[in-house]
Amino acid sequence: MALRNPSSERLLHKLVTTARGDPSNMRIVLDAMGTDEYPVPDVAGAVDAAREWGDDEIILVGREEVIRPELARHDTAGLNLELVHAPEVIEMDDKPAQATRAKKHSSMHVGMGLVRDGQADAYVTAGNTGGVLAVATLHTLKRIRGIKRPAMTGILPLPAGHVVALDIGANADCRPEYLLQFALMGDVYARKVLGCERPRVALLSNGEEPRKGNTLVKDTYDLLESSGLNFIGNFEPKEAISIEADVVVFDGFTGNIFIKTLEATAKMLTDLIREEIKANPLTAIGGLLAKPAFGRVARQVDPFEVGGGPLLGVNGVVIVAHGRSNARAIKNAIGQARKAVQGGVVDAIRDGLQDDREG
Amino acid sequence: MALRNPSSERLLHKLVTTARGDPSNMRIVLDAMGTDEYPVPDVAGAVDAAREWGDDEIILVGREEVIRPELARHDTAGLNLELVHAPEVIEMDDKPAQATRAKKHSSMHVGMGLVRDGQADAYVTAGNTGGVLAVATLHTLKRIRGIKRPAMTGILPLPAGHVVALDIGANADCRPEYLLQFALMGDVYARKVLGCERPRVALLSNGEEPRKGNTLVKDTYDLLESSGLNFIGNFEPKEAISIEADVVVFDGFTGNIFIKTLEATAKMLTDLIREEIKANPLTAIGGLLAKPAFGRVARQVDPFEVGGGPLLGVNGVVIVAHGRSNARAIKNAIGQARKAVQGGVVDAIRDGLQDDREG
Repeated sequence: MALRNPSSERLLHKLVTTARGDPSNMRIVLDAMGTDEYPVPDVAGAVDAAREWGDDEIILVGREEVIRPELARHDTAGLNLELVHAPEVIEMDDKPAQATRAKKHSSMHVGMGLVRDGQADAYVTAGNTGGVLAVATLHTLKRIRGIKRPAMTGILPLPAGHVVALDIGANADCRPEYLLQFALMGDVYARKVLGCERPRVALLSNGEEPRKGNTLVKDTYDLLESSGLNFIGNFEPKEAISIEADVVVFDGFTGNIFIKTLEATAKMLTDLIREEIKANPLTAIGGLLAKPAFGRVARQVDPFEVGGGPLLGVNGVVIVAHGRSNARAIKNAIGQARKAVQGGVVDAIRDGLQDDREG
Repeated sequence: MALRNPSSERLLHKLVTTARGDPSNMRIVLDAMGTDEYPVPDVAGAVDAAREWGDDEIILVGREEVIRPELARHDTAGLNLELVHAPEVIEMDDKPAQATRAKKHSSMHVGMGLVRDGQADAYVTAGNTGGVLAVATLHTLKRIRGIKRPAMTGILPLPAGHVVALDIGANADCRPEYLLQFALMGDVYARKVLGCERPRVALLSNGEEPRKGNTLVKDTYDLLESSGLNFIGNFEPKEAISIEADVVVFDGFTGNIFIKTLEATAKMLTDLIREEIKANPLTAIGGLLAKPAFGRVARQVDPFEVGGGPLLGVNGVVIVAHGRSNARAIKNAIGQARKAVQGGVVDAIRDGLQDDREG
């Protein structure tokens, strides 16, 4: 394990050159100050990832004095782990616009700065989503040329497979052209990362009939129909959940409500079942016997198994994980970053826009 | 049981006069052509309601030749049931705008016509929601003077109690003033029907912070703050579901997505649990033992226990039930209609607007 300091340019450069010796090796930045319980789950997830994918390098970014003692609790001998100091932290309850302007040396700025400067291939964080968005679009990576609005993207773990859902929160107010670009970016992600050959793209609406919806959805429908994408029409939530589509598109307000309602309902229902099963000795015994079944259900819809989703439309791979992530979720988010880098998602989005401009 | 025919004015009048002898008796119209399986659950629910609330009269409206044989399968002796013939049916897959113009003698037109003409106190249907909305607002009851847009209202059955949710689908595109009126109408309903003394009104958004949301939500926030209502701020879906509010307000697109996502997630999860429990003999035995707990859970979140929700903002009580309603749901929807009539909801909305105009 080595310590790097962004101000120590020479050392940094040397290390980077060395690591770049084998171009197949990836360098993934993990924001150590991300989760609600940072740095504990973050560091543990990074250590697990370094152990699993030994050829790649994990760069922990954050306050050295916080990360180092936490790292000392793990056996890191022989692991491809680095530490880059960043003195400031964008906290969960910080207001993104102000905090990202005021804390230019945050782990987000430093971490995404490494990706911008070509010193790392991807950045992973479980931190303040608004902060990630602001630091990515305004301060470091910036939007891909031609992209009107980057989209926060969820990879929904559903019983029958994964669904790429975007925008789930970056843009509360949208225009039809933004949604068209979300669909294009989601299509790229589903092809390059999930391995769908010709992703089925759906538009979330309040009815399945063509052109049913609010004005935004109606106008977007027409754009998607003539987009060349494999657009399969309007989907109500039940279709979106039962995975008859690979990509589901919505504005960031609707998408955020959709995904949060999904999470909240699942939690409400499982809490209620747990409570009622425990309420009586006989049902409690039944619950114990049925436990493996509940375990199988939980694994099929476990967001921590996915780990995180990409912020699509910026010049670099950025994966955002849930603030409540545990070590497994962080490790899996790093896994998502690896897949996005391997799939060449950022270049594919750039190329897609190129075709678009030429076509 | 008596048969009335709207063309036979003399008979109709006589019957109405008789029934009106005791002003405490209610006359509730049930659209017999409402559910997906009409007239079976509709008629059965009406019979059950007539048995439970013997002083009130249930008027079945629809095609006589369809309703009469179905009624014959029940013991209706001594029940306060009437039948009013309506030759046409707005089917579930009819396009509302066209069908409601073309079928002026549908059970919806005739049924709501009885309410408009003071010959009945409420209309209940499990039929085509768009059809109900069009017939109510354009052809029969019309909007209450001063109401900009009527709202389809859901009474959400949640573990800790009922939540009045509106608009859940009548208006896909809304302005802040519409949402303010939805809040006012929801407040009336929660006071008059659910017995909340000072209903807590929340605005669904993608964040709890004041003024977080899309442009519509931000602008509505300001209106609600100065409305005199007990406005408790922005709620994310998890708060809306855990009943910390009595009334939750949204535009009809967002509300529709919210409620359908809630339903779809609950169904997906319960189907999945059922499947996984059955997949293995030991967990299947556990499932059998735990069955009473599942039953208790199901009852707490059972939409059929509520029956239906009101279309608020029109000149009459209209309750809309789910197309998949069974007899119990239909009976309970009739129960909702009784409560709305007893609470004087329509007059209270009119009076509220009056105060508004004077204030």
